[in-house]
Amino acid sequence: MSISTISWKNSCVRIIDQTKLPLRLEYIDCRNAQCVWDAIKELKVRGAPAIGIAGAFGVVLGIGEIKTNDYAEFKEGVDRVIDYLASSRPTAVNLFWALKRMQDVVYANYDMPVRGIRRLLFKEAEKILEEDKGICRKMADFGSRLIKNGDCLLTICNAGALATADYGTALGVFYRAKEKAKNFKVFACETRPLMQGSRLTAWELKKHSIDVTLIADNTAGLLAKEGKISKVFVGADRIAANGDTANKIGTFNLSLVSFYHKIPFYVVAPSSTFDLNLKSGKRIPIEHRKAKEVLELQSKKTTSPGIKVYNPAFDVTPHRYISGFVTEKGLIYPPFERNIRNALT
Amino acid sequence: MSISTISWKNSCVRIIDQTKLPLRLEYIDCRNAQCVWDAIKELKVRGAPAIGIAGAFGVVLGIGEIKTNDYAEFKEGVDRVIDYLASSRPTAVNLFWALKRMQDVVYANYDMPVRGIRRLLFKEAEKILEEDKGICRKMADFGSRLIKNGDCLLTICNAGALATADYGTALGVFYRAKEKAKNFKVFACETRPLMQGSRLTAWELKKHSIDVTLIADNTAGLLAKEGKISKVFVGADRIAANGDTANKIGTFNLSLVSFYHKIPFYVVAPSSTFDLNLKSGKRIPIEHRKAKEVLELQSKKTTSPGIKVYNPAFDVTPHRYISGFVTEKGLIYPPFERNIRNALT
Repeated sequence: MSISTISWKNSCVRIIDQTKLPLRLEYIDCRNAQCVWDAIKELKVRGAPAIGIAGAFGVVLGIGEIKTNDYAEFKEGVDRVIDYLASSRPTAVNLFWALKRMQDVVYANYDMPVRGIRRLLFKEAEKILEEDKGICRKMADFGSRLIKNGDCLLTICNAGALATADYGTALGVFYRAKEKAKNFKVFACETRPLMQGSRLTAWELKKHSIDVTLIADNTAGLLAKEGKISKVFVGADRIAANGDTANKIGTFNLSLVSFYHKIPFYVVAPSSTFDLNLKSGKRIPIEHRKAKEVLELQSKKTTSPGIKVYNPAFDVTPHRYISGFVTEKGLIYPPFERNIRNALT
Repeated sequence: MSISTISWKNSCVRIIDQTKLPLRLEYIDCRNAQCVWDAIKELKVRGAPAIGIAGAFGVVLGIGEIKTNDYAEFKEGVDRVIDYLASSRPTAVNLFWALKRMQDVVYANYDMPVRGIRRLLFKEAEKILEEDKGICRKMADFGSRLIKNGDCLLTICNAGALATADYGTALGVFYRAKEKAKNFKVFACETRPLMQGSRLTAWELKKHSIDVTLIADNTAGLLAKEGKISKVFVGADRIAANGDTANKIGTFNLSLVSFYHKIPFYVVAPSSTFDLNLKSGKRIPIEHRKAKEVLELQSKKTTSPGIKVYNPAFDVTPHRYISGFVTEKGLIYPPFERNIRNALT
């Protein structure tokens, strides 16, 4: 079963509009960089790896509007497009990583005709997408070894096919374990305020015939205390050199619940999610989103007018609450600072 | 500012329909015990003390239908009404406590004409309601001493005027601190799945001109880590002899967040919430509610058809994560087993 979250079709970036799921499976065809920017900003495409891929193709669309064959002018235009796309969301590092790869193509090929660079940029975006598919499979292979028969797994947000080009990060691990005929159950946190757990993860897992039970995020503590959770698997938006991990708001709470109940807590993420320039999680910028996401349910008000809201989209889980990272290069265990550096460089 | 959550008017129990708040302030006039049972079951009236009061008046309505002047027949009828009302919700002990008080009136006055017992039962229900008002004020007095200028307080669910006859438990503490001109802020957890924080607490606090900010429940960890929370105040539905406390699902998670960040965590509850017959929280029955509460937002589906749900309404916070109890008899600090018994017996 394959979900085509993001693809290149007829000179467009074709994206599943994830804000419409699971009630409707609709696609958006982006013809320019602004459409991609909007899709990222409004979470039509979301999930750190998928945002990276969308950003790379956003550059391809953006250069279509740079009508020049002069290298200096072209380079300046690409820089502008990249700065613009980078401004869509601040926390996930994969976007910046993908944009940097695109920029490097332009910088490295200064001696090539602009037309040739355009072709290389398209190839680079395609490569980022294809690579992501392979990376998903590798993470899934490594991660699925951690799953035993009878496990009850907990996850938050959507770290699945909808967050990547193909198979997912945390959910990819589940898909691979299922392919290996392992027998397990999944509890999915509904993930307030935007319900990625209800809307996306439950939908994906059901499509893959995985036994899934939805919970309000608040329920994780009780479930753990009742002995109903054996392992936690989450995705990530940015991981610092010491292993501190930014992920969907609520992940930190889950890590405390897991730590207290001695439940292994795994983060599944490609190497592009690691930001080795950041010593710790303290400097990871946290995106704050509109009050409306908390104040309304299905476009209906839930509270009195004029109530203030604090709505950060991410939190940072300190590395000491993380049991291990599942990457395409293998599993990484503590001490993280040394082992992350060794595995990734 | 007073909110008349529950009152006796024209031979009816008049209840604010809390499922309609904050969009509409509507009252229900219950004329029989079944109407009260439904109101409790469907959370039209909710909050441990308010449920107790509703139960007591439910008995008053129920005996209106017992057409006898024979004591034995009457007593049997009252027992049936009490058993019926007790079956509405299993976790909060205040309901059973109030029903027991009503039953004791019948049992103690076996030598009185039934007509006289009817009058005494009405008086007992009125007394439970009036007592609750006084208890709220006392808890608020004791609790407000814990609040300092500049405090940022966190609460979950609704432990306010809407959960009691008058002033609230946890929110009563805030109201009294405000009357004492203390300067503080409150963060209210929206409280999935039924949004008592958004719908009821934010509404109440705003009516009392208290600075309130709403958060998705997932946000508590990040807020605490950012140093934005100085104290947590919650209500309770049942407290065991050792201090283990059942309260709205998510309270246990908050206690872990507080413990990890060394934030004082207070439970505000009248003595009727303590169940000294229970040695620990392990035996507190946890009510499980309909899947629909999690599967739908504002009557619209949030996920694919056929997704399973685990929807407990309460969890139990172990006593070691609780800094103190605020009761009408004063503050109770650890060691709880001894100090609770001393304070309440």
